[in-house]
Amino acid sequence: MVQIKDMLDATQTIRPDGRAVDELRPVKITRHWTDVPEGSVLIECGNTRVMCTATFTQGVPRWRKDSGLGWVTAEYSMLPRATTERTDRESVRGKIGGRTHEISRLIGRCLRGVVDMKALGENQIQIDCDVLQADGGTRTASITGAYVALADAVAWAKEHKMIRANRTVLRDQVSAVSVGVIDGKPMLDLPYVEDSNAMTDMNVAMTGAGAFIEIQGTAEHRPFTRKELGELLDLAEKGNKELQAAQRAALQQD
Amino acid sequence: MVQIKDMLDATQTIRPDGRAVDELRPVKITRHWTDVPEGSVLIECGNTRVMCTATFTQGVPRWRKDSGLGWVTAEYSMLPRATTERTDRESVRGKIGGRTHEISRLIGRCLRGVVDMKALGENQIQIDCDVLQADGGTRTASITGAYVALADAVAWAKEHKMIRANRTVLRDQVSAVSVGVIDGKPMLDLPYVEDSNAMTDMNVAMTGAGAFIEIQGTAEHRPFTRKELGELLDLAEKGNKELQAAQRAALQQD
Amino acid sequence: MVQIKDMLDATQTIRPDGRAVDELRPVKITRHWTDVPEGSVLIECGNTRVMCTATFTQGVPRWRKDSGLGWVTAEYSMLPRATTERTDRESVRGKIGGRTHEISRLIGRCLRGVVDMKALGENQIQIDCDVLQADGGTRTASITGAYVALADAVAWAKEHKMIRANRTVLRDQVSAVSVGVIDGKPMLDLPYVEDSNAMTDMNVAMTGAGAFIEIQGTAEHRPFTRKELGELLDLAEKGNKELQAAQRAALQQD
Amino acid sequence: MVQIKDMLDATQTIRPDGRAVDELRPVKITRHWTDVPEGSVLIECGNTRVMCTATFTQGVPRWRKDSGLGWVTAEYSMLPRATTERTDRESVRGKIGGRTHEISRLIGRCLRGVVDMKALGENQIQIDCDVLQADGGTRTASITGAYVALADAVAWAKEHKMIRANRTVLRDQVSAVSVGVIDGKPMLDLPYVEDSNAMTDMNVAMTGAGAFIEIQGTAEHRPFTRKELGELLDLAEKGNKELQAAQRAALQQD
Amino acid sequence: MVQIKDMLDATQTIRPDGRAVDELRPVKITRHWTDVPEGSVLIECGNTRVMCTATFTQGVPRWRKDSGLGWVTAEYSMLPRATTERTDRESVRGKIGGRTHEISRLIGRCLRGVVDMKALGENQIQIDCDVLQADGGTRTASITGAYVALADAVAWAKEHKMIRANRTVLRDQVSAVSVGVIDGKPMLDLPYVEDSNAMTDMNVAMTGAGAFIEIQGTAEHRPFTRKELGELLDLAEKGNKELQAAQRAALQQD
Amino acid sequence: MVQIKDMLDATQTIRPDGRAVDELRPVKITRHWTDVPEGSVLIECGNTRVMCTATFTQGVPRWRKDSGLGWVTAEYSMLPRATTERTDRESVRGKIGGRTHEISRLIGRCLRGVVDMKALGENQIQIDCDVLQADGGTRTASITGAYVALADAVAWAKEHKMIRANRTVLRDQVSAVSVGVIDGKPMLDLPYVEDSNAMTDMNVAMTGAGAFIEIQGTAEHRPFTRKELGELLDLAEKGNKELQAAQRAALQQD
Repeated sequence: MVQIKDMLDATQTIRPDGRAVDELRPVKITRHWTDVPEGSVLIECGNTRVMCTATFTQGVPRWRKDSGLGWVTAEYSMLPRATTERTDRESVRGKIGGRTHEISRLIGRCLRGVVDMKALGENQIQIDCDVLQADGGTRTASITGAYVALADAVAWAKEHKMIRANRTVLRDQVSAVSVGVIDGKPMLDLPYVEDSNAMTDMNVAMTGAGAFIEIQGTAEHRPFTRKELGELLDLAEKGNKELQAAQRAALQQD
Repeated sequence: MVQIKDMLDATQTIRPDGRAVDELRPVKITRHWTDVPEGSVLIECGNTRVMCTATFTQGVPRWRKDSGLGWVTAEYSMLPRATTERTDRESVRGKIGGRTHEISRLIGRCLRGVVDMKALGENQIQIDCDVLQADGGTRTASITGAYVALADAVAWAKEHKMIRANRTVLRDQVSAVSVGVIDGKPMLDLPYVEDSNAMTDMNVAMTGAGAFIEIQGTAEHRPFTRKELGELLDLAEKGNKELQAAQRAALQQD
Repeated sequence: MVQIKDMLDATQTIRPDGRAVDELRPVKITRHWTDVPEGSVLIECGNTRVMCTATFTQGVPRWRKDSGLGWVTAEYSMLPRATTERTDRESVRGKIGGRTHEISRLIGRCLRGVVDMKALGENQIQIDCDVLQADGGTRTASITGAYVALADAVAWAKEHKMIRANRTVLRDQVSAVSVGVIDGKPMLDLPYVEDSNAMTDMNVAMTGAGAFIEIQGTAEHRPFTRKELGELLDLAEKGNKELQAAQRAALQQD
Repeated sequence: MVQIKDMLDATQTIRPDGRAVDELRPVKITRHWTDVPEGSVLIECGNTRVMCTATFTQGVPRWRKDSGLGWVTAEYSMLPRATTERTDRESVRGKIGGRTHEISRLIGRCLRGVVDMKALGENQIQIDCDVLQADGGTRTASITGAYVALADAVAWAKEHKMIRANRTVLRDQVSAVSVGVIDGKPMLDLPYVEDSNAMTDMNVAMTGAGAFIEIQGTAEHRPFTRKELGELLDLAEKGNKELQAAQRAALQQD
Repeated sequence: MVQIKDMLDATQTIRPDGRAVDELRPVKITRHWTDVPEGSVLIECGNTRVMCTATFTQGVPRWRKDSGLGWVTAEYSMLPRATTERTDRESVRGKIGGRTHEISRLIGRCLRGVVDMKALGENQIQIDCDVLQADGGTRTASITGAYVALADAVAWAKEHKMIRANRTVLRDQVSAVSVGVIDGKPMLDLPYVEDSNAMTDMNVAMTGAGAFIEIQGTAEHRPFTRKELGELLDLAEKGNKELQAAQRAALQQD
Repeated sequence: MVQIKDMLDATQTIRPDGRAVDELRPVKITRHWTDVPEGSVLIECGNTRVMCTATFTQGVPRWRKDSGLGWVTAEYSMLPRATTERTDRESVRGKIGGRTHEISRLIGRCLRGVVDMKALGENQIQIDCDVLQADGGTRTASITGAYVALADAVAWAKEHKMIRANRTVLRDQVSAVSVGVIDGKPMLDLPYVEDSNAMTDMNVAMTGAGAFIEIQGTAEHRPFTRKELGELLDLAEKGNKELQAAQRAALQQD
């Protein structure tokens, strides 16, 4: 494996792609990317590209019936050749892997964290995030893109009188970004080459108001201190603010 | 269901999208659509959009070892929201459906039909066709697009000295198109609204030389006569010629 | 593998089993082969032997409810030692293979192609084709035998007042036969040794009126021309006429 | 459900099919029932019909390698329409049910009980028992029929020099029969109507020498006493002797 | 494998753990071992330890509805490190093995053999037997322990007015024990080292009244005679009487 | 559901079980709980009870071969009646759920975070955490208990000369605890009744040196601020210190 320290200029910390340590990769959010879904978004974060769709259906799963509350759920998947080495299809293997399960659940929780289920009423929104090309940060790109698809699906439902127009279903925005400590240095928005060299790797989902919906930090390779945690959260805050600006810009277009 | 005969002008046979009965939908073939696969193509036939990748790997499956021959295989899948109604993921259901199996096998046979396995040597090419948006003809679009990805993967392998440059791995082109009898009238390249109203539905894969690789005609709703078969094959021949021209045009660019 | 050209006399084209190129293997159809099914048929085409049962049940699957229409579906399976080498059971492997799926779907479509679903009413007929011994042409033998089992099940249902006696549920007969090009020569009804040497292999299902229900031609080893296609269809027409005579003869006995 | 006591003449104990309490149903064993397996037997016990094949292969499973010992294993399955109500295929359901597992294991143990694994050498024999029609006693008919198929496979292997001619692979015969207590009365060889009314149900596999290989008695509906057990074993002994005579008669023909 | 004959003193038949041939291992039954189940028992038979819980739920499975009858079912499982070599989890492998199926079914039948389903009414009791440590006899220990958990669940249901207090749901006790012939000598209650050396192995479930619920004897390694069967049943009778005394003692405490 | 605010004394914040907000439930760690595993621990945190075993095997999975590095992996599972309502077994359902996958992966990462894979050499340690009784915090109890089992397995391997005695395989301790915000108030070590009422729920794994291995905070019900995060981490630090003292105390006994 390429050792990232060989690529980093020790004194100046220039990253392999030339970004500053606190700089996001270019973000591009394309709405209405396919025609039929109620929300359909292509999000590109550097070379990572994820197709996020939101499917609105009336009614909720059985266990939620007659609660007056809606439901939001998510599924994440990677196309076989999103990765450098081809990954076998989970449909062919006949079961979903742990990583896929973990990420699907994460995306679902993050979106539900900003949805007012009462305002949604007994309706369900299913999010599908399919990674077309993977270069690190696919789960955080999925959350950021899925929020925009979700917003479009809610707007669609209001327009089609399935949700009353005056209800505020989305209490806030949500976006997510990865941060990590590489060669001792905290950095924002890791592409694959950095991610696989990270000592500590953290995904942080935040609301527009700057509160946390989800923090997942893992330090398989070297424990991190509370001080490092603080620096990582500072980077994540900066990154999420910029991603939320991109979300708002996308949603203002038509 | 919308009855297509209400949409067809009986004397002039204008189709819902205004095409003549022997007219293809617009075709667009984008090569190098993603970065990492050895072949990566986005094919668009009208509203149908399929991502086709070709993965080249050295070595063959065990049952093929020491035969001196290569292998080409294909997998087809539909993203959940490629369709108007969301389709459950086969990975979540834990098994592959009959339709998926049938189409994956069809694509594989069509491509193998033009590959010289000896010239390929003990190498494997895996084709993945993932339907991003479905509006009829997804299996034929997959074949047509996959051929281009296959050609790119073969070129890549020659460039990387994994196949000798002077070997002719691809004996010919292959493309495929759907034809069908709708309200008694044979037509070329059916979108979903026509396909679901067809009495007879046929998929025809042909080589550049005009020979057949695969014919699959099914008449669940009304048997077809040998005369109708002749007319359908005429249409398929015309369509495949045009698709092959589009393949060649795409492969000449860089 | 035995090369069939070594077995064919080049000038006279005598086939390994001494048949003429347009000659069917001996066909034997035994009705009421087991006692309990509404239709139970053993069909023998040369050494190929398939047990075909038809199960009549009142009511239709949920997606078909309240349509006033019936449903016919089929499942195909091979006993483990129907083949020269033992094949692992799909129940043990935990999943159905692509070939099985493909054939089950084919049989279902062919039978539905001659059933008037309105006349059948909201009833379901399930066809099971289990191959006891396989020597080529198992899918076409299944279709031919299953039609007879289907006819028996329809008669049973009329007798038991589950379908009104004056309704014509079966609009026509259906049978199927394989044809192929072997060593450049079109031939009818291929046993395994020929089938595995075929350049082109085609299964053709036809109605009593001589129209097509299904054509599946595949040319993995050498593309076929339109002229060859014509010759293959001529052979298939001849074969299907003879098979349909055998079906009628079987159904007239009691 | 039909109550069997209404069918039994209380004083004379005439059984629904007119047999005496210690009388077997007619047994018919047909060898070489299909052509390719090393052993292929159709066994009919009354209306119960089971196809038993024995597949001989050189080599043993990995866990048995280099032990100098052979292996015998068995799989049991019911065709969907062997039963009055159609049973869903286990391949379609994607898993093997408990009853199938239990019976497959039973058959394997019974056959291994008479095989000298050293004499078999590092070879494997796979038994497949497929029930074509079920009317009670399918597992015991499977054991009785499978023994004959096994004997044919061993003879085949000796003839083909895969086992040395002077080795005694089969130390003895094995057959099995069901017995049960119905309405307080012990009886031999229960058809379905009796089996489903039995208070106690027992399957007994015995060698030609009259020793037991397997006893499985279950009394879900009424516990049985040691005296009843004795009577049941007497019946089983008588039945197995007659079944073993039928096995020997079949094996002497050619 | 350790040969038990090396451990047995030929003249005196002292067993590896010093027990007499007709002596049970120490039995310990702990009720209320966990807090929430309606019945929760830890049973220890020598080094074998099984956690048995009984879950009472109102209502029965669909196929049992409106019968006025209850249902009792059981599931058996082994923790991965209950055994000397770690066993892969069946949940990870994605399917239940034949041995697990066989034992789960055995436990269910044994318990149902003493339950009056009418007295239970339309309620279900689910038994779970999870082996924490395995040293032979796990299935018989499961039955013996599960009976106590079942009794506690019935008492709980009476206390909570889900079964009327005056109904006798349990017609009798049930316990089970293993017996076997080792080196020609019948013995009671086999630990793993003996079990794996047994020529014949038998599990016997009996009621308090001394009748049989289930006998499963298997002689994969050497057939057993009727005389040996008699001796084995004598041992099983003795063992079960002692186990039932232990059950009663446990149920009298509080 | 019981509302925890009804149970909390608003001014004094007495928790349902009388603990102070920063107080752990009683912890009990029993080593050598079963006999055969290389490490076998029962950990009890209040009413939560988890059996943790560590299985040491020589050699590593294929993808790790010849790396000179070892591997540690973990599987988590819940016994069906660990919970108030019985949970269906994942082995019976035929697949592992997302929650199980997520937790198994978490436990594995936490333990690997303190293991020096080079010192472990090409050996594998498999951790199994089976929840016998669940009352909140099962994943954190699993991590805390598994560390002790891991330490025992490492000691066992040194004693048996499978790891050199002078190597430091465990770089540090690791323990984990849950914290959460309930009714606006941060609290340590949540039992089920609190956990299901938490606005924010966080699991924190720390080393003996006080650094973080894993932080997983989720705020499905109300986002949390950076200030709240700080308070939660303070509580987690206190809790982990106490848990690590309990680990050390357990490991010093023999």
